This record gives sequence, structure tokens and C-alpha cells, in this order.
Amino acid sequence: MQKLVAVDLAKSYRLLNHGPTVLVSSAHDGQQNVMAAAWAMPLDFAPPKVLVVVDKATHTRQLMEGSGEFVLNIPCRAQAEQVLRAGSCSGKEVDKFAACGLTALPGEAVNAPHVAGCIAYLECRIISEPHNQQQYDLFIGEVLAARADADVWHDGHWNFSGHDTKRSLHYIAGGSFYSIGEQFSVSASLQD
Amino acid sequence: MQKLVAVDLAKSYRLLNHGPTVLVSSAHDGQQNVMAAAWAMPLDFAPPKVLVVVDKATHTRQLMEGSGEFVLNIPCRAQAEQVLRAGSCSGKEVDKFAACGLTALPGEAVNAPHVAGCIAYLECRIISEPHNQQQYDLFIGEVLAARADADVWHDGHWNFSGHDTKRSLHYIAGGSFYSIGEQFSVSASLQD
Repeated sequence: MQKLVAVDLAKSYRLLNHGPTVLVSSAHDGQQNVMAAAWAMPLDFAPPKVLVVVDKATHTRQLMEGSGEFVLNIPCRAQAEQVLRAGSCSGKEVDKFAACGLTALPGEAVNAPHVAGCIAYLECRIISEPHNQQQYDLFIGEVLAARADADVWHDGHWNFSGHDTKRSLHYIAGGSFYSIGEQFSVSASLQD
Repeated sequence: MQKLVAVDLAKSYRLLNHGPTVLVSSAHDGQQNVMAAAWAMPLDFAPPKVLVVVDKATHTRQLMEGSGEFVLNIPCRAQAEQVLRAGSCSGKEVDKFAACGLTALPGEAVNAPHVAGCIAYLECRIISEPHNQQQYDLFIGEVLAARADADVWHDGHWNFSGHDTKRSLHYIAGGSFYSIGEQFSVSASLQD
């Protein structure tokens, strides 16, 4: 049984800071959907905000604009096939959760579901910016709640050591992913 | 001697798709600067566009707004200390390139320099969006030219195998980085 712990909102940017591929989940008017997105990142610390690019042609876009909400889920190595499927078909035609082998779980701060088995999720409400949404397919979300997997999130930091199947995914193209590698630290002493 | 090859603009998004930390380089009115940024990502394929968040307090911001240009450089494992330094002092007070142990090289499509030893760079002109810049510190750039290190960029894809010191960096906080890990591929056949 996966244990998800609450993430301090002031540190929730760290969930996305290393650039993982995400699953965007959404719900509106009795429908729900999930899509893969490589273009998501933090935008601000306090209140925490995120950016995500969602094309006009997607079913997710309709649900996001209808509800004013979305969830960014961070999938892991064990879910790579499901993530690729979620990027390869449309929720307009099929039940994406079922088609991708993913399970929707009820949200806390939003009505949009989050995705079972992901190593973190950020529940967001859309800050309406019609020009960005129309011109660039760009959405800004304020993070209302966030949780992460207790196996790989400790004291406000990722730690994937010993949990290779829970490493974050970093998509390139054509079914090709990277998993995140090794952690290391350096100090910032200036040169003489 | 590092060999940099031209990157097809239509595939330049792949340089950033896996979420690396970047160095933003800029120049204006006889000054040049470099800063670290974890918040950068692709925005569009054609013409290729990128996003980067640059705080109002930074010297880089002044140079970007003055010149209408910037370069996103992708640093590597061998440069982690320099990257952390570039995120730890201001170019208002010191020559950041010298203070960080980094070398500026002349640009091709822009006047802003790029950073020697980085594994790729994207030369960008700013698409003016004053509301985004003022409200969110968010800049949109159109990619005019891009190059990548021939050791790790082949046929439009990253391949870091055998070049661990050239793996991309993914910053978290407090001097803690991840390097990108292993590449793998999956297929997207839908479930029955």
C-alpha cells in the first residue's frame, strides 16, 4: 500500500524542479481524463504556482476549461508504458484511465482526480489568463495541495536511492524516456 | 576540443524536453551576464519557442529586457559547481563569468554569448509579452539557432552513454542536484 505524505506548499516547487514528465488529470460534468505532458514546471514559490502546456485539441483542455482545475501527477519508472499510452490516444474516444491501465483516485482540494501509483501530485486551480491559454496553450495553476510518496520524499527532498522503480520519468520523443539518475551535492564557494 | 553540431530547429525542443537546469546568458550595452535557472521548458514546436522565469531583481533581467535576447545553455555534470555559483551571486556586483569559472563565447544568431563547455545551447529572441514579464517574471523566446555537443547528441536525440560527465543537471535545492539517468524505450500498445 502506497503511503502519500502531505508536502509543505512552500516546498512543493521541488516536486517539479528537476523537470519530470507529468500526467495531467482533470474532471468536469461527469467526465474525467488523463494525459501525458512533458511541458510543465514551477512558476512561483509563494503562493506556489505551476505552468503546463495543454493543446486545444485535447479532451483534457475541455475539462480544464470547464472546471477551472487540474492535477499534475508525477509518474515513475514502473508506469512508463501507461504514461506513453496516455500520450498516444484521446479521451474523446475512449476512457483514458481504463485504456492506459491507470486508476483515478478522488481529489482533496479539487474535484479532479489524481492518478494511483504516481510518486506525487499537485492539485491546482487555474489562474485565468485567456491570452496565454488561447495564444500559447499555456495554463497557470495555483497549487492548493500536494502529496508525495513517503518512500522517495523525505524532509522536503526527493530521495530515490533504493527505489529505482519509483524514479521520475523524463520523456524525450518516440517512446524514449530517461529515468532520473543519481543525486549529488556541491558547495558554492566562489573562486579566488 | 568540444564539437558542437547544429540542431534542427524542429527538434530543438528535445534539448529541453527532459527538464534540465539551464544557464541563461545575456548581453546588452557592453555588459554580459550568466545565471542559473531551473524553470525553463519548451512552449511550442514550430516555430520553436521556450519559456524561462527570470526574477526582476536579477542583472540578467536588465540585459534581457535591454537587448530582447537570451541564450539557454544546458550545463553538464562536470560543471555543477560553476552552475551552483552562477545561482549564488549577482552580476550586478561581480563579473559572473569570471566569478563562476565560466567562459563566454560569441553568439551566432544573437549578440548574447553562450557558455563554453555546455552540452547544448538555444539562442532566442524575446517575444514581448509585457503582462507575463511583469506579473509572472515569465519570458517567451523564439529559438533562432541551436547547437549540441556531438558526443551526446546524435540524430536528433540525446545519448549520454559513455559520457557520464556530460549528463545534464537537474537541480532541486540547497546545492543538491540530480544527473539524468538511463535511457529506455517502451511501446504504446493499448491494453485489451
